Amino acid sequence: MDLNLLHTKLSEAGQSHLLQFWDELNEEEREELLQDLQEMNFQELNSFFQRAMQVPSHCASQEKVDSRMEPVPREVLGSVSRDRSKVQEWEKEGLFQIAQNKVAVLLLAGGQGTRLGVFYPKGMYNISLPSQKTLFHIQAERILKLEQLARQRHGVKCTIPWYIMTSGRTMEATQEFFTKHNYFGLRKENVVFFQQGMLPAMTFEGRIILEAKSHVSMAPDGNGGLYRALGTQGILQDMERRGVMYIHVYCVDNILVKVADPAFIGFCLKMGADCGAKVVEKTNPTEPVGVVCKVDGTYQVVEYSEITLATAEKRSSDGRLMFNAGNIANHFFTLSFLQDVVNVHEPELQHHVARKKIPYLDTQGRLIKPDKPNGIKMEKFVFDIFQFANKFGVYEVLREDEFSPLKNADSQDAKDTPTTARHALMSLHHRWVLNAGGHFIDENGTRIPAIPSLKDLTDLPIKCEISPLVSYAGEGLEELVQNRDFRPPLIIDETGVHELVKNGI
Amino acid sequence: MDLNLLHTKLSEAGQSHLLQFWDELNEEEREELLQDLQEMNFQELNSFFQRAMQVPSHCASQEKVDSRMEPVPREVLGSVSRDRSKVQEWEKEGLFQIAQNKVAVLLLAGGQGTRLGVFYPKGMYNISLPSQKTLFHIQAERILKLEQLARQRHGVKCTIPWYIMTSGRTMEATQEFFTKHNYFGLRKENVVFFQQGMLPAMTFEGRIILEAKSHVSMAPDGNGGLYRALGTQGILQDMERRGVMYIHVYCVDNILVKVADPAFIGFCLKMGADCGAKVVEKTNPTEPVGVVCKVDGTYQVVEYSEITLATAEKRSSDGRLMFNAGNIANHFFTLSFLQDVVNVHEPELQHHVARKKIPYLDTQGRLIKPDKPNGIKMEKFVFDIFQFANKFGVYEVLREDEFSPLKNADSQDAKDTPTTARHALMSLHHRWVLNAGGHFIDENGTRIPAIPSLKDLTDLPIKCEISPLVSYAGEGLEELVQNRDFRPPLIIDETGVHELVKNGI
Repeated sequence: MDLNLLHTKLSEAGQSHLLQFWDELNEEEREELLQDLQEMNFQELNSFFQRAMQVPSHCASQEKVDSRMEPVPREVLGSVSRDRSKVQEWEKEGLFQIAQNKVAVLLLAGGQGTRLGVFYPKGMYNISLPSQKTLFHIQAERILKLEQLARQRHGVKCTIPWYIMTSGRTMEATQEFFTKHNYFGLRKENVVFFQQGMLPAMTFEGRIILEAKSHVSMAPDGNGGLYRALGTQGILQDMERRGVMYIHVYCVDNILVKVADPAFIGFCLKMGADCGAKVVEKTNPTEPVGVVCKVDGTYQVVEYSEITLATAEKRSSDGRLMFNAGNIANHFFTLSFLQDVVNVHEPELQHHVARKKIPYLDTQGRLIKPDKPNGIKMEKFVFDIFQFANKFGVYEVLREDEFSPLKNADSQDAKDTPTTARHALMSLHHRWVLNAGGHFIDENGTRIPAIPSLKDLTDLPIKCEISPLVSYAGEGLEELVQNRDFRPPLIIDETGVHELVKNGI
Repeated sequence: MDLNLLHTKLSEAGQSHLLQFWDELNEEEREELLQDLQEMNFQELNSFFQRAMQVPSHCASQEKVDSRMEPVPREVLGSVSRDRSKVQEWEKEGLFQIAQNKVAVLLLAGGQGTRLGVFYPKGMYNISLPSQKTLFHIQAERILKLEQLARQRHGVKCTIPWYIMTSGRTMEATQEFFTKHNYFGLRKENVVFFQQGMLPAMTFEGRIILEAKSHVSMAPDGNGGLYRALGTQGILQDMERRGVMYIHVYCVDNILVKVADPAFIGFCLKMGADCGAKVVEKTNPTEPVGVVCKVDGTYQVVEYSEITLATAEKRSSDGRLMFNAGNIANHFFTLSFLQDVVNVHEPELQHHVARKKIPYLDTQGRLIKPDKPNGIKMEKFVFDIFQFANKFGVYEVLREDEFSPLKNADSQDAKDTPTTARHALMSLHHRWVLNAGGHFIDENGTRIPAIPSLKDLTDLPIKCEISPLVSYAGEGLEELVQNRDFRPPLIIDETGVHELVKNGI
C-alpha cells in the first residue's frame, strides 16, 4: 500500500498516531507495521467501537436486564434427569443422523492456556491421566468411537468431520500437533482447521493501541468470531459439500465433553430446533456461570456478572433456582441456521467490551504496563446468535457426567484445574465400571464402597481410566468388568483390561 | 479393688491378658492400669462387642439396606426453598419458645482436630477471619444475639442454656478456654460442660487392646455417646430444672451453624415432631454425605459408604436425587423424647464397628503400629435414635447459607478446610450486605458485580465479616449498609462499621 494513502486513511479514521514512530523504524520493522495495518478496515473498526461502546454502563444495564429476564419454559427443555424415558429415543435419532454423515463437530480452540500457565493451545494440555492423553487426543478418540457405534448400529461407514477453529496464536502449533500425532487415528481430510479473526485493542476513546513501535496490540475477536470465520474461510461451503446438516459446537477445555452427543442432537431434532444449548443445573446462586434464559422474549445467555443477587437467588415454586440453566458452551446448530446467521445476522451483532489492562507505548515510545484498565478488547460470543433462532431448545445434562472445564493451574484454592479435571474423568469412569457390574477392592482384598470414605483412602478418587476407543459413554463395558474385582489403578483400552488383580469373586 | 478379684473378673471375661505385664510395672504404673481397669464393666463390654459384631459384613448389608430404603415423604419435609411462605411463621414460633426459656442448645465437641492437624478441641480453631474469632466464639455470640432478638420481640429477658459435650480428651482444654475468654459474654452458669464416655479398642476376637503395658487403648464412644452421658451426668435433670423443653443438637465444626435456629425449632413444633433433622440437598450422587431416609418404615441416616451406586444415582420424577436429604448433624429433640431415649431405648442400641489400625503391644511388650486394620473401635451415632421418634420432621435448608464443616487442614485437594470455611462465612456475609442494599466497590471506585469474576479480582471472595452480635442471620443490616458503597475488607461489629470508604453513591 502506498504510504500516503495509508496516511490519508489513518487520518480520516482518527488513527494517525499509529505511524508516530515511523521515522524511528528500520526497514524490517516498517514492513511489519505495514502488514499489521494493511489488513485493517479502519472505518469498520471505528464503527465496531462506536456500537460496542453504546451499550449502557454496567450498573444501569444490570437492573435493566434483571427485570426483563424470564426462565427457560419447560416445553423447550429436555432433561436427562427429568425426561429419562426419552433419552434412549433421542440417542437413537442422533446416531441415525451420524450414520447418514449429517453430523459435524466444531471445536472452539482459539485460546492459549495463559491462565493455565502455558503458552500453547489448551487442547495440547496433558492433565496427567494414566494414559497421558491430551484434550485433543481424548476428543479425537470420542469421534472415532461414535463413528464406530453408528456403523455398528446401521451397518454403514460414516464420518463425523471435525472443524477446528484456531486463532493467529494457536493455528501453527495446533496443526503441528495433529500432524505429529497422525491425527490421532482420524483421516486428515476430515479434520479441517480454520482461523478466527483478530481485532486491535483500543483506548476508551477509540484509539488503536500500539504494543511496540512496529506492532499493534491484537487479540482474537472472541469465540463468536466463529460466525465471521465460517463465512470468510469457506467452512459453510465445506459443510454443504459434505452434506452436513447438524453441527455440535463446543469448547476445547471441557474434559468430559460428549462430542457430537447423539442424545443432544436427537433431542434438538425431535423438537425441531434450529439452535440449541446444552446446560447443567446451577444450584448455588453465586456460582460464576452464565445462564440461558429469555430476555424480552428471545433466548440469550446472561452472564453472571450482569445480574443482581436478588435475581440470582430467585427460586421457582419447586425450590430450584429460577435461572438455573448454566451455560457450558455446548451448542447445536442446523446448517441452514448457520447460513442465515453468517449471511444475514452476523454483521448486525455488536461486540462486547472487555475493559483490560493493556500494555501501551507512551509518547516517548516506552512500554507502560498499566495497573488499572486503560482500554478495551472487542469480542463477540458464540451464544450471541441465540436470538435469531426460529425454534430454540435447551438440553439439561448432569454436571458430574458432562462438565469439568480446565481453566486454571493447580494451586490451593483454584477451581477448574488439571487436578479437578483428572478427578472428574476418573470418577466418571469409576462409576461406569460399577454400573457395568464391576467392583474395586483395596490392598487387603476388601471391596471399596461405591462412595469411598475420604478418611480411609489416601488415593482418591479411585484411579480408573477407560479409553474412548473402548466406550463413548459407559456402553459396552459389561463383558469386560461384570462380576470382576479390580485393584486400582484400572486402565481399560483397546489393548485390553490392565491392572486386573483378581477374576471372579 | 482387690487384685485377686480383678484377676477373677478378667478371667471370667476372657481379658486376663490385660495383666500380662503386671510384674514389669512399677507402683505408679500399676496404679494407672488399675485405674483404667476399675472403671470397666467387662461383662457389659463383651456384650457390646458381641452385639456390634453381629451386624452382617459390609457387602451383604449394603444390598440389603438398598432394597429397604424409601425417601423422606413430602409431608414430613419443610424446606426453606420450597415452603418459603411459611418460614417467617416458623421463625416467629421458634423465637417465642426461646423467649419462654424453653429452648437449649447442645454442642457435640468431643473430638480433637486431628485431621485438621491440631491436638486441641476443634472449637478452639481460629480460621483466620478478620476478627480472629474461633468456632466457640462465633457460636457463643450467635446465642447471645438470639437471646437479644427474643427479648426485643417479646419484651422478656431469656436464656438459651448451652450444653457442651466434651470427651476425656477435650474437657480440660475446653473449660480452660471458656474461662480464659470469660465465656464470650455468656453467663457461666448457663454453659454446662459434660463428658461423653470412653470405650476400649478391641481385637476382632474381642480382646481389649493395650497401647502400653500400663494403659488400655481407649477412644470416645461416638457422638451417640451423648445419650448415655445425658443420663449419667445429670444433664436431663438440669434441663428439666430449667424448664427446657426443646433442644437443638449440633456439631462444633460447622462455621455456618444457626444455633437454636428459630425456624427449625418452629417447623418441628408446628408439625408436632418430637425428633427432627436439618438437612441440605445432596445434588451429586457420589458426594460423601449420609442421607436421611426411611428403612423398613422408620427414619434413619444411611451412611454414604453403605449404599450402592445404583441407589445413590436414583432420581425422582422431578429429576432430583431420590435420596437427597443430606445429613448435617443438626437435630431437634423434645426433652420428653430424650428422656424416653435415655431411660428406655439407649441400652438397646448396638454399637457401630469401625475397623481401625490400632497400635498394640506384641507378646514381648513392643509397640507395633499395624499397616492394616487389626481391631475395632465401638461407637454410637447421634442419629441412631431417629427410629424411636413418634413423629419425625425433616427440615431442608440451603447449603450456602448453613453448612460448611471444618474437617481437614489446608492442602491442595482437600475439602472442608479452614479456607473453605472462611470463604463460606465471608460469602454469606457479602450476600447479607447486598441483600440489605449495600454495595462493594473496587480500588477504582467501580461497583463490583454481585457475582464477581474470578479473573478480575485477585482477592476473592470479597472480604466481609459481620459479627453475630450485629446480625444473627442477615437481619437488621439495612440501617447500616443501605445505599452505601464499601471497599472490602468490610467489618461490621458491635463497635460499628469499619473500612467504610465512601458514603452514599
